[in-house]
Amino acid sequence: MTAPNSVPIALREMGSFHIGGRHIEVSGRPVRDMLFTAGGVPVTLDPNGKYQVEQMYAQYFLVQQRRGKLPLMLWHGGGLTGVTYETKPDGTPGWLNYFLRQGWDIYLSDAVERGRSGWTDTFEGDPVFLPLHDSWERFRVGPIGSWNDDSAKRAPYPGVQFPIEAYEQFMKQGVPRWVTTDDATIAAYVALVDKVGPCAVLVHSQGCAFAFKVAEARPDKVTALVAVEPSGTGREENVAALRDVPIAVIYGDNAKDHPRWGQIRRNVSDYVDAIRKAGGSVDLIDLPDIGIKGNTHVVMMDRNSDEVAGVIQKWLERKGLVD
Amino acid sequence: MTAPNSVPIALREMGSFHIGGRHIEVSGRPVRDMLFTAGGVPVTLDPNGKYQVEQMYAQYFLVQQRRGKLPLMLWHGGGLTGVTYETKPDGTPGWLNYFLRQGWDIYLSDAVERGRSGWTDTFEGDPVFLPLHDSWERFRVGPIGSWNDDSAKRAPYPGVQFPIEAYEQFMKQGVPRWVTTDDATIAAYVALVDKVGPCAVLVHSQGCAFAFKVAEARPDKVTALVAVEPSGTGREENVAALRDVPIAVIYGDNAKDHPRWGQIRRNVSDYVDAIRKAGGSVDLIDLPDIGIKGNTHVVMMDRNSDEVAGVIQKWLERKGLVD
Repeated sequence: MTAPNSVPIALREMGSFHIGGRHIEVSGRPVRDMLFTAGGVPVTLDPNGKYQVEQMYAQYFLVQQRRGKLPLMLWHGGGLTGVTYETKPDGTPGWLNYFLRQGWDIYLSDAVERGRSGWTDTFEGDPVFLPLHDSWERFRVGPIGSWNDDSAKRAPYPGVQFPIEAYEQFMKQGVPRWVTTDDATIAAYVALVDKVGPCAVLVHSQGCAFAFKVAEARPDKVTALVAVEPSGTGREENVAALRDVPIAVIYGDNAKDHPRWGQIRRNVSDYVDAIRKAGGSVDLIDLPDIGIKGNTHVVMMDRNSDEVAGVIQKWLERKGLVD
Repeated sequence: MTAPNSVPIALREMGSFHIGGRHIEVSGRPVRDMLFTAGGVPVTLDPNGKYQVEQMYAQYFLVQQRRGKLPLMLWHGGGLTGVTYETKPDGTPGWLNYFLRQGWDIYLSDAVERGRSGWTDTFEGDPVFLPLHDSWERFRVGPIGSWNDDSAKRAPYPGVQFPIEAYEQFMKQGVPRWVTTDDATIAAYVALVDKVGPCAVLVHSQGCAFAFKVAEARPDKVTALVAVEPSGTGREENVAALRDVPIAVIYGDNAKDHPRWGQIRRNVSDYVDAIRKAGGSVDLIDLPDIGIKGNTHVVMMDRNSDEVAGVIQKWLERKGLVD
């Protein structure tokens, strides 16, 4: 039973919170008189003292007519935020609304140091900013060498499902990232599943490298895990913990033979093999192998995102997680 | 008719988008091999080229049973994001849910360079980070000199409505801000009201300095303006444009005689006088003068936030904006 996009979304509650993080001490910075806005009244700011760092933002939508037996978490990938799952760059509904209309309570978060989680200048190293061209090839909208500053001259993969006219709109969703905050990010996700309790986790790209490790640390909380286009893995030495956590791994089109994604996919496949050897259950699904063609790395923003969501919904049903 | 917090929220649609911003060109930065996540596959990043900057994130909630005649915008203040209006730091519902339950279509945004709007290192100057102690006195939870690192020794204003046990939780909502991005921020808000069309704007603190200027530029789009605890004003030379825009200005307790807020309030009062002289209509409401005591700068997070929201709702009704 698929609820069409015209069906209202009835929520028994919605809200948000920040979770996790810690306090650090900063000293030795000069006290200064600040003007926050032109025409305002100056304020003296003493920037020394304790700071809140590494907390994580989560927003929840609890449906009136619940069908999912557990809350469904939506965790995003690198350089992005929870917006990943909201309205797609082409203006049509994304997976947040899809899964709400399927009757799931949803927790949608922004990873540590991204979006509404906030950030400080106390992280190690510099943040990474992505130029406009970066995601075209890295997210497999087009093959290596197909980018052109002139949008009319860009050559996407034939039959690509990404709405290429909305590429610039998609890039507005980008946020910087640090590459030194993995441990803090994983700690905040652990705090989130500890707070919410047993849940299904649907996660994308870089988020999968975090989610596998969270599941290894909390197999009693991550009841099922759907890893969409993982760009990394958990730790092979910990896979025994995943013995009773059903896992689906999903890749879009043009991944297997891609110079970089082929290697990523092989690494993930090795990790999947290790989980299986430890007695775990993993379904590794290449979408083109089940007849769903043209998907990029950002599957949830592709034109056929509802079709792929349907694959995930059916998998969750088969795992007994839907009433 | 006040809908209690137990009433479900029925939405005919919800979604989000990024609006505004521009492309800039960056050059001369070294190409480098990156590893986004430990255990991943390296990628070569060319950081030169076009970048998307200064866009703004907005999320919309369109109610099933509409009573507000226009969409209601919720714009936040400095160092914060749209989370300002979501669940309060003490875990109880905030103004987003209050006004949804009153039947308003709502657009809730994160200002440029904050939260889900993203940021780049191309802004002028350094961002400002706020230590844990900063907001206690500046947001009038307690008087000047009342902060103590030991929470048991902090001395709030007597009868304060802020949930002081949730002060640390509140500080998790903070994000950095630049003080050089006012023009870009105003441009994005103008783009937002141009897209959405005539609307009522409810705005807090620093956001008011932006909203007054947006209303001056688009009096045909900002149909009514509720400025909660403004920390700045519009431009006196432009007040004639506000002749037909009904405005409410609301301050909490302990503002008038506060060393800094007293000056801010006098500046705003001068601006209000200028609007009135130009033929405009402004209601300047000091909450203690109407019997609502103990409110801080973050009125919407105080325990009695629903009571203050009721004052705003009734004002909007009096202005003919509710069916």
